[in-house]
Amino acid sequence: MSDLSNFTFDDLQIGQTATFTRTASEEAVKLFAAVSGDTNPVHLDAEFAAGTMFKERIAHGMYTGGLISAAIAMEMPGPGTIYLGQELRFERPVKLGDTITITLEVIEKIDGKNFVKLKTTATNQDGKVVVSGTATVMPPKEQLTMPRLPEPKVTLEG
Amino acid sequence: MSDLSNFTFDDLQIGQTATFTRTASEEAVKLFAAVSGDTNPVHLDAEFAAGTMFKERIAHGMYTGGLISAAIAMEMPGPGTIYLGQELRFERPVKLGDTITITLEVIEKIDGKNFVKLKTTATNQDGKVVVSGTATVMPPKEQLTMPRLPEPKVTLEG
Repeated sequence: MSDLSNFTFDDLQIGQTATFTRTASEEAVKLFAAVSGDTNPVHLDAEFAAGTMFKERIAHGMYTGGLISAAIAMEMPGPGTIYLGQELRFERPVKLGDTITITLEVIEKIDGKNFVKLKTTATNQDGKVVVSGTATVMPPKEQLTMPRLPEPKVTLEG
Repeated sequence: MSDLSNFTFDDLQIGQTATFTRTASEEAVKLFAAVSGDTNPVHLDAEFAAGTMFKERIAHGMYTGGLISAAIAMEMPGPGTIYLGQELRFERPVKLGDTITITLEVIEKIDGKNFVKLKTTATNQDGKVVVSGTATVMPPKEQLTMPRLPEPKVTLEG
């Protein structure tokens, strides 16, 4: 596993990109329900979901929001970044098993304030945009490189 | 546990509010790291976090985003709502053990499009705003009442 590293304001260039990929697995949807308290049946109950406009179970929209924030924290600008704001437009549903790629692109650097705006786009395995939006962040003041921490291990019951 | 019910466009009135409360526990922060892949040390490593401007571990900003989406899905407008967009401003850190209350308030009804705008505010146990913002949703077309599904049970290892 590669080390975790970061980009300061001066390191970041307009047009610079980074990506982060993750699969909206059965386990991921159940964990998101457990951590958020959102047990809406469209996420958890196949029979209920079949009667909705989505026709099948879908991941929580904010699961993809969580992947965008993970991309910012882990890839660009990385550890030490202060997350100031995020706009999200939920464009298409994420279905169970979809592989979601977050693409971040530096679109604006606001000198003096140490603010950077990132275009944040989530696409599925078919290249369709599922979530679009913009993040505002303060990049870290100091460069650092450190080992990646392992993901906490969880077991789902039932 | 009370049943889950919802509000259609016609049911919702400007100024109507709903709340949803949850604690950013040690377990919640670890689960959010596991589901999102965001193992940034400011969330998981007390020693690293002590050297940051926050001085201690903090919850992921998008954890609170997840609570806002849960409030929309579970409380108002409730099941059947289509989540179109969310703006988030991260105003203050959420520390481990903080109890976060989401308050939703109907601020705009857009006739013809069946869109509703909600003011979405997350406050901590001291009444300080941690996340502010606005959601855009399509309320459900039909009223329904159904039993709440239980939260999936998870066990953290280590």
